[in-house]
Amino acid sequence: MREVFVIGIGAGDPDHLTVQAIKAMNLVDVFFVLDKGAAKDELVQLRRQICAEHIVGDDYRFVEAPDPARDRTPDDYRGAVLDWHELRASLYGQMIRDELGEDGCGAFLVWGDPSLYDSTLRILDMVATSGAVAFECTVVPGITSVQALAAGHAMVLNRIGEPIHITTGRRLRAGLPDGVENAVVMLDAECSFESVAEGDAGDAWDIYWGAYLGTADETLIAGPVREVQGEIERVRGEMRERKGWIMDTYLLRRER
Amino acid sequence: MREVFVIGIGAGDPDHLTVQAIKAMNLVDVFFVLDKGAAKDELVQLRRQICAEHIVGDDYRFVEAPDPARDRTPDDYRGAVLDWHELRASLYGQMIRDELGEDGCGAFLVWGDPSLYDSTLRILDMVATSGAVAFECTVVPGITSVQALAAGHAMVLNRIGEPIHITTGRRLRAGLPDGVENAVVMLDAECSFESVAEGDAGDAWDIYWGAYLGTADETLIAGPVREVQGEIERVRGEMRERKGWIMDTYLLRRER
Ligand SMILES: C[S@@+](CC[C@H](N)C(=O)[O-])C[C@H]1O[C@@H](n2cnc3c(N)ncnc32)[C@H](O)[C@@H]1O
Ligand SMILES: C[S@@+](CC[C@H](N)C(=O)[O-])C[C@H]1O[C@@H](n2cnc3c(N)ncnc32)[C@H](O)[C@@H]1O
Repeated sequence: MREVFVIGIGAGDPDHLTVQAIKAMNLVDVFFVLDKGAAKDELVQLRRQICAEHIVGDDYRFVEAPDPARDRTPDDYRGAVLDWHELRASLYGQMIRDELGEDGCGAFLVWGDPSLYDSTLRILDMVATSGAVAFECTVVPGITSVQALAAGHAMVLNRIGEPIHITTGRRLRAGLPDGVENAVVMLDAECSFESVAEGDAGDAWDIYWGAYLGTADETLIAGPVREVQGEIERVRGEMRERKGWIMDTYLLRRER
Repeated sequence: MREVFVIGIGAGDPDHLTVQAIKAMNLVDVFFVLDKGAAKDELVQLRRQICAEHIVGDDYRFVEAPDPARDRTPDDYRGAVLDWHELRASLYGQMIRDELGEDGCGAFLVWGDPSLYDSTLRILDMVATSGAVAFECTVVPGITSVQALAAGHAMVLNRIGEPIHITTGRRLRAGLPDGVENAVVMLDAECSFESVAEGDAGDAWDIYWGAYLGTADETLIAGPVREVQGEIERVRGEMRERKGWIMDTYLLRRER
């Protein structure tokens, strides 16, 4: 039976790699790489470096496939994502069938951890359901950008006994559920933390922001949202301009 | 200046250890170990094995300290935890001052990741604030039991665009915030998932449960809460009886 590993490689620092990931990578014949265009070159490069550094011998190869086009400003967000997943599923199915032998071992190297805002496992489920090719799937967990954020600020995400809410910029703008005290925000293209500074009838929030976590460009800013939001916007804009892409995430904590 | 690493060692599998953790461990002179009584022997043992396997040479030592007694059924939960943190802070301060030389390097090896329901960083903050001893603190992130749970079930924690709520058994029994669709529950000594099966006016939830994740005893059960709750209770009870302790966590997902 074909075997497919979905391996979390951590969120920026090549040293986030786990012993389990290294052991799995050494079993792999083919690494499947989705080309995400020029902006993501740096990240594809990182994957190749990680393999070169940790795999003994050179008994493996990369198979690159183009990323299907995606509607980035759809009216129906979930519908658009599902359409794009369908396209990817047929692509993944083809790659697994055509590039792996019957006992072959393939892998997807996933940014951070495969369980957090990543579509690889969902798409592989669609491949399995479609019956295009039979394979066994094994997940190797990785360090998430949430852990990298907390480590950068040397902090605990929750205060004693409190829940932690992980959400998206889109959802933050729509309003946090009542009673959320700690919200980690990912996938935010628009500095949505501004929305808590404006709204919420006088509630005060602290922000712990991090960009390019785990990399040489790691940048951290923390403070009351009202006081540091201007600085975050400025630094974020400058870095994004300079590098051509940005990855940032932050914890919002309601002051007591 | 003294340096103290707080190193996440992952949630059960020694191979959860990251390259970054291994590099940090090789810099450490003294590992501080809190003795948590007979039930936790297995976990203390695991830490020693991890060190023996990954540290080059034997230029390090363990310092064990007793865990201060803690009121496990307090009226004021947060107050009791804070009192216990005070006791620990004075203990940690002493250990860092007395066991590390002025340029010495110490470490706490933390289960899972230090940012998630762990008091080590909070207590080290108290030590720093108290002025008992000056030190620099560096955090090395680790695989959490949340990642281990998702990997065991080969699943993504969120459905497309949905938030993820991480909470405690105590909070779950008090009721989830409105609109929470995916809740990971930790620190639950009482099978609190029963509360969602009973309440919530007809809402149906699925559960993805895991115990001893990442270890040889890893056990996974998934299904609609109403259908599998009896099985989880039985298996949980039996395993806890047999091993003398239990560690479990689960994802609750509202059916669509
Ligand atoms: C599609 S999600 C993938 C998350 C990933 N699976 C993980 O476990 O971290 C991408 C989002 O993760 C966050 N992110 C990932 N890596 C990051 C990094 N190194 N620094 C800051 N944010 C990061 C950003 O919020 C980004 O929009
Ligand atoms: C005090 S919290 C520490 C969490 C840890 N810092 C982490 O990152 O996973 C302990 C709780 O974590 C969960 N847990 C930790 N390790 C686990 C494992 N191997 N299997 C199942 N649950 C685990 C259980 O819910 C347990 O009550």
